[in-house]
Amino acid sequence: MAGNSFGKVFKITSYGESHGKAIGVVIDGCPAGLKLNTDLIQQDLDRRRPGQSKIVTQRKESDTVHVLSGVFDGVTTGTPISMIIYNEDQKSKDYSHIADKFRPSHADYTYQAKYGVRDYRGGGRSSARETAARVAAGSVAKQLLEAEGIDVFAYVSQVGSIALQRPYHEIDRSQIENNPVRCPDSSVAQEMEALIREVRKDGDTVGGVVHGVITGCPPGLGEPAFDKLHAELAKAIMSINACKGFEYGSGFGGVTMRGSQHNDVFEKVDGKIVTRTNHSGGLQGGITNGMDIYFRAAFKPVATLMKSQQSLDQTGKKVEIEGKGRHDPCVVPRAVPIVEAMAALVIADFLLRNRLTRL
Amino acid sequence: MAGNSFGKVFKITSYGESHGKAIGVVIDGCPAGLKLNTDLIQQDLDRRRPGQSKIVTQRKESDTVHVLSGVFDGVTTGTPISMIIYNEDQKSKDYSHIADKFRPSHADYTYQAKYGVRDYRGGGRSSARETAARVAAGSVAKQLLEAEGIDVFAYVSQVGSIALQRPYHEIDRSQIENNPVRCPDSSVAQEMEALIREVRKDGDTVGGVVHGVITGCPPGLGEPAFDKLHAELAKAIMSINACKGFEYGSGFGGVTMRGSQHNDVFEKVDGKIVTRTNHSGGLQGGITNGMDIYFRAAFKPVATLMKSQQSLDQTGKKVEIEGKGRHDPCVVPRAVPIVEAMAALVIADFLLRNRLTRL
Amino acid sequence: MAGNSFGKVFKITSYGESHGKAIGVVIDGCPAGLKLNTDLIQQDLDRRRPGQSKIVTQRKESDTVHVLSGVFDGVTTGTPISMIIYNEDQKSKDYSHIADKFRPSHADYTYQAKYGVRDYRGGGRSSARETAARVAAGSVAKQLLEAEGIDVFAYVSQVGSIALQRPYHEIDRSQIENNPVRCPDSSVAQEMEALIREVRKDGDTVGGVVHGVITGCPPGLGEPAFDKLHAELAKAIMSINACKGFEYGSGFGGVTMRGSQHNDVFEKVDGKIVTRTNHSGGLQGGITNGMDIYFRAAFKPVATLMKSQQSLDQTGKKVEIEGKGRHDPCVVPRAVPIVEAMAALVIADFLLRNRLTRL
Amino acid sequence: MAGNSFGKVFKITSYGESHGKAIGVVIDGCPAGLKLNTDLIQQDLDRRRPGQSKIVTQRKESDTVHVLSGVFDGVTTGTPISMIIYNEDQKSKDYSHIADKFRPSHADYTYQAKYGVRDYRGGGRSSARETAARVAAGSVAKQLLEAEGIDVFAYVSQVGSIALQRPYHEIDRSQIENNPVRCPDSSVAQEMEALIREVRKDGDTVGGVVHGVITGCPPGLGEPAFDKLHAELAKAIMSINACKGFEYGSGFGGVTMRGSQHNDVFEKVDGKIVTRTNHSGGLQGGITNGMDIYFRAAFKPVATLMKSQQSLDQTGKKVEIEGKGRHDPCVVPRAVPIVEAMAALVIADFLLRNRLTRL
Repeated sequence: MAGNSFGKVFKITSYGESHGKAIGVVIDGCPAGLKLNTDLIQQDLDRRRPGQSKIVTQRKESDTVHVLSGVFDGVTTGTPISMIIYNEDQKSKDYSHIADKFRPSHADYTYQAKYGVRDYRGGGRSSARETAARVAAGSVAKQLLEAEGIDVFAYVSQVGSIALQRPYHEIDRSQIENNPVRCPDSSVAQEMEALIREVRKDGDTVGGVVHGVITGCPPGLGEPAFDKLHAELAKAIMSINACKGFEYGSGFGGVTMRGSQHNDVFEKVDGKIVTRTNHSGGLQGGITNGMDIYFRAAFKPVATLMKSQQSLDQTGKKVEIEGKGRHDPCVVPRAVPIVEAMAALVIADFLLRNRLTRL
Repeated sequence: MAGNSFGKVFKITSYGESHGKAIGVVIDGCPAGLKLNTDLIQQDLDRRRPGQSKIVTQRKESDTVHVLSGVFDGVTTGTPISMIIYNEDQKSKDYSHIADKFRPSHADYTYQAKYGVRDYRGGGRSSARETAARVAAGSVAKQLLEAEGIDVFAYVSQVGSIALQRPYHEIDRSQIENNPVRCPDSSVAQEMEALIREVRKDGDTVGGVVHGVITGCPPGLGEPAFDKLHAELAKAIMSINACKGFEYGSGFGGVTMRGSQHNDVFEKVDGKIVTRTNHSGGLQGGITNGMDIYFRAAFKPVATLMKSQQSLDQTGKKVEIEGKGRHDPCVVPRAVPIVEAMAALVIADFLLRNRLTRL
Repeated sequence: MAGNSFGKVFKITSYGESHGKAIGVVIDGCPAGLKLNTDLIQQDLDRRRPGQSKIVTQRKESDTVHVLSGVFDGVTTGTPISMIIYNEDQKSKDYSHIADKFRPSHADYTYQAKYGVRDYRGGGRSSARETAARVAAGSVAKQLLEAEGIDVFAYVSQVGSIALQRPYHEIDRSQIENNPVRCPDSSVAQEMEALIREVRKDGDTVGGVVHGVITGCPPGLGEPAFDKLHAELAKAIMSINACKGFEYGSGFGGVTMRGSQHNDVFEKVDGKIVTRTNHSGGLQGGITNGMDIYFRAAFKPVATLMKSQQSLDQTGKKVEIEGKGRHDPCVVPRAVPIVEAMAALVIADFLLRNRLTRL
Repeated sequence: MAGNSFGKVFKITSYGESHGKAIGVVIDGCPAGLKLNTDLIQQDLDRRRPGQSKIVTQRKESDTVHVLSGVFDGVTTGTPISMIIYNEDQKSKDYSHIADKFRPSHADYTYQAKYGVRDYRGGGRSSARETAARVAAGSVAKQLLEAEGIDVFAYVSQVGSIALQRPYHEIDRSQIENNPVRCPDSSVAQEMEALIREVRKDGDTVGGVVHGVITGCPPGLGEPAFDKLHAELAKAIMSINACKGFEYGSGFGGVTMRGSQHNDVFEKVDGKIVTRTNHSGGLQGGITNGMDIYFRAAFKPVATLMKSQQSLDQTGKKVEIEGKGRHDPCVVPRAVPIVEAMAALVIADFLLRNRLTRL
């Protein structure tokens, strides 16, 4: 009810504030018998970690994960998996100057309006630091999916106006992690990085697009009516901080097409039913047809600027917000593992839910 | 779990197939004491109804709603509100020719793959006829919201490549229902209608965009982390048949902006906290700030064509799908009340959930 | 949230008031592929139906069930199964005299206190008529369980002070339906019936006990911590109108035993692990061990008397409640199919949930 | 789905195994603005703690609670409250001898049957150590209830055959914590303690009864149909390890009463509606009427004996279970704070849910 859980079968509950003692997550519903590799969880967390490159925030956090329960002798037992990440860089004093101020386009005002009280340090619960919990849980989901031959990956396809023009099936996936932007084309990545450095120099920020891809889903995942797979995926992705838009398959581009162009013709290839085109993005009626699922997520420019801004305080008085702190000039490089995590959580959940479908 | 419920407090469960006995919905969680106007529910259903104009499907359904429970002497009692719409035009014979065929870009194949059995008549449960249940429930939600001064409306802003260029706050809302397309600009509406007639003549279909607006929300609606208001709204809208994309506020356009442009500066106007711009689309950290919520939803061209198409049957054999039946050349005119309904359900749910926030 | 749904996977939502248009239920989560026999559903409803014998209420209802969705060619499709029972004997005028009065030990006062408005006709939603919806849904669950070799049955083991002394495994199950009380021992049944007739003659009512048994459960059903099978079963049974107590296995009698007597020793018999005794009632740590589950449920005497009673009206003024209407002198004969239904719903839900346990 | 969460609005998720790193709980849904006293949480944990007296297990745990999130400057913020208790006495070696054995009437066999893998150390997740998480969460619920004038308490009313004969409203509540048994009558408590010492000397265990009382509930708490307050309470209490039976109000004793005796007549006393008797146990139709709620819970004798027992191992081979370790000869003294916690969680949940009832 209070918004901190996600999933129905593979269900996670996340907790923690930016400058509290810890961030954590409890997974209730991971099946027993999964050999869990905690190194892989840490690797995913390292991809989201602050300070990983020059173009992200320099907050000092090792983001070391500790598995507290639900795993015995390296194997999941079917009981809740609790994972915790202690906050190490809690410079609370940094935030006293904004204790009663509402930073523009942050959640300071809305949390105050909602709760009447808030942990103002670094945005408290509204901080994107909460996504570390998602990445840890998503990494467990990924390991579950891997056992089923399902693969989830994401990459940066746009920063500001610099866009990768190739479709997802023409990229070289092995290049994604080879640059700090996480764009699979090294020359476009360089342009993107240059842009990020430039806006950072201006004390400004810029938006971007992350592309997500899911391959290897068997046909039949997803539920009718309200819990269509793409609807749940939209929710999952749009719940990531700064996300403003989501489209899958033909997306907004499909609007201008005719049905006769857009329809994906079924064919039998090597004894398997496939579609000739894939404008459906692997989903028909919200249920997988076995083709790739692909989607795009739009991220707005980060709200924290290294520039002075006008605003109001809690009494409604005009105040100046100073531009200081350690923040990301562009959110998308670090959003990549978060997008993967949320997508993996959705698919893991539907994979398990699909076991309930038939007698 | 099986996907046919929506909402956490104002919770609906929908049932029914296109050519079964009835379509219906149960609302569990509507507060007691609401004076319910069933004429308004019928009015909303009439806006979604087949046969309402020349540019929509001519299936013959009066879509008359019957309220079976939860209302006494015209007032809700807090117990479940059950509403039923009997199917009147169940021409099952029309569908025998496709009993074992998979229509391209329909859910025939995916339902078969998922369930191993399906009601093939008119798409069964996957038919957009299910949305009648949503409209009925959404109309109850609207009446709840009206009592709180919250208003939800939608309109067609694009058909194929013909787009309304004005932003939502410059349209004349009273014009929306004055034309069969539901576009608030009569001259653009005429172009759209002409395009729809043209594609219909070709036996083809075309996509479109629906714009949705919610005004009058108090600050504080929405929940942190996973149940951000816009995330739930994205799910709600994307769960509508044929929807391929969702964006709110600056949306995909926000990607190319700088933070210094995108940030919405707080101001106090007439003693009330507002923002100078509204790129945030009324939401910061997933919680309402009191400004208008606005969003766009992309709809693909309808999959049913009046043209012959190649496909496969259940045995994997190549078959021809004939172009016959009664279908919409463009879904967006009838999608308008559905978008309103889903948006109203989301807001009603968060409005009630917000009662749980403080001591 | 509003209390009208039960189950997590095999989930039902019930609606309807005693004197409204209909009582109904939607099952969301019944797997596809179940051959559904509606005659069996009707048979269970007939066992709960008013007027079935001289010792139950003479309200005139055929309680005919109509299946509106989710079944195609006699087989469940995995989509919601909606079932409706129209109310035929809605003598609303009978109830005008108690419109503003609070009947003792009924829910009139508490519903008024909760909702501020209520359908006072026959208790509205609080009427035991609601249980018809449970019986219909439970009958579907039973058919699902039968396919797995699981059997659920119940019988009356006590009326007032007249108790059947034999344990459940010594009764002749085929005798249960051979008398109107549903007690498997015909001579005890006659005593019970005589007592019921006697209290009815006095215009009074009397309580009773229903015994429930579930056989054939595979080991492993139930969940740890909060959703122990017996905990969910307790909730299910205690949610039946007039139920005041629940115990399983050794129950309250186990309190005075020593651990060395109570512990059930494991043995291997015919290659199968069993326990020598079964004080555990088939459940250890809330999870089935393959032995029979058995439980007892206490029902208080029905609150509606054919005697005049003192009470208050909504203004707090003293009033007389006249003893008229058509009601049950003892609830347990009709409670038997309701207990079976609720138990079957619990087991069906856990049976499906157990599919999620292992990789 | 996997059973480790409880509550709908005031929702808790518990994790941890007996001999893992920690036991913990996340509360999602505690309203903002509650002044939280962590000393009171610790006090309740101390009442459940091992080693608190000579008649309970001597396992060495300080059970120190750490609040990790959701509280800022001593006040709840509306975000998840995470509490953790590290396990200090993890003598894993003690358990190697039973790694592949099924202890009689423990959950060893059923967990193995369910999951195919288990943490055998001290029962793993099935250990009553898990209830520490419940007590911590329940203590937060109690503080919420206290602010509303609602009081929850419990006491031991029976050990073996030694029973306190007085009804709950005639006890001296201040005496409950004055003896290690938690029976409010010191002379009965002494008899109980003597019995517990005697069975311990025999290497045996004995059952007991805990009585629970909730005072100060406003009328209107509880939901119709399935979520009747007493049904949820039954589930909550029955989910506590070793609980075999639950009754409220007249309970099993009500079975032999006539309706004319059992009905609680409404009266107006000092301008307030009350009932002359309270066989209803404060609940009519599952909804509070403002009178006291009272209930009894039966606990079986603890399964761990200090005697040698016959059993089977995982291969089905006969084995001897040695009687060693540190365990409780009788569970009820330590069950008292757990019963209070579960009852408080139920009431807190319904108190919040009741905010959703009216327009």
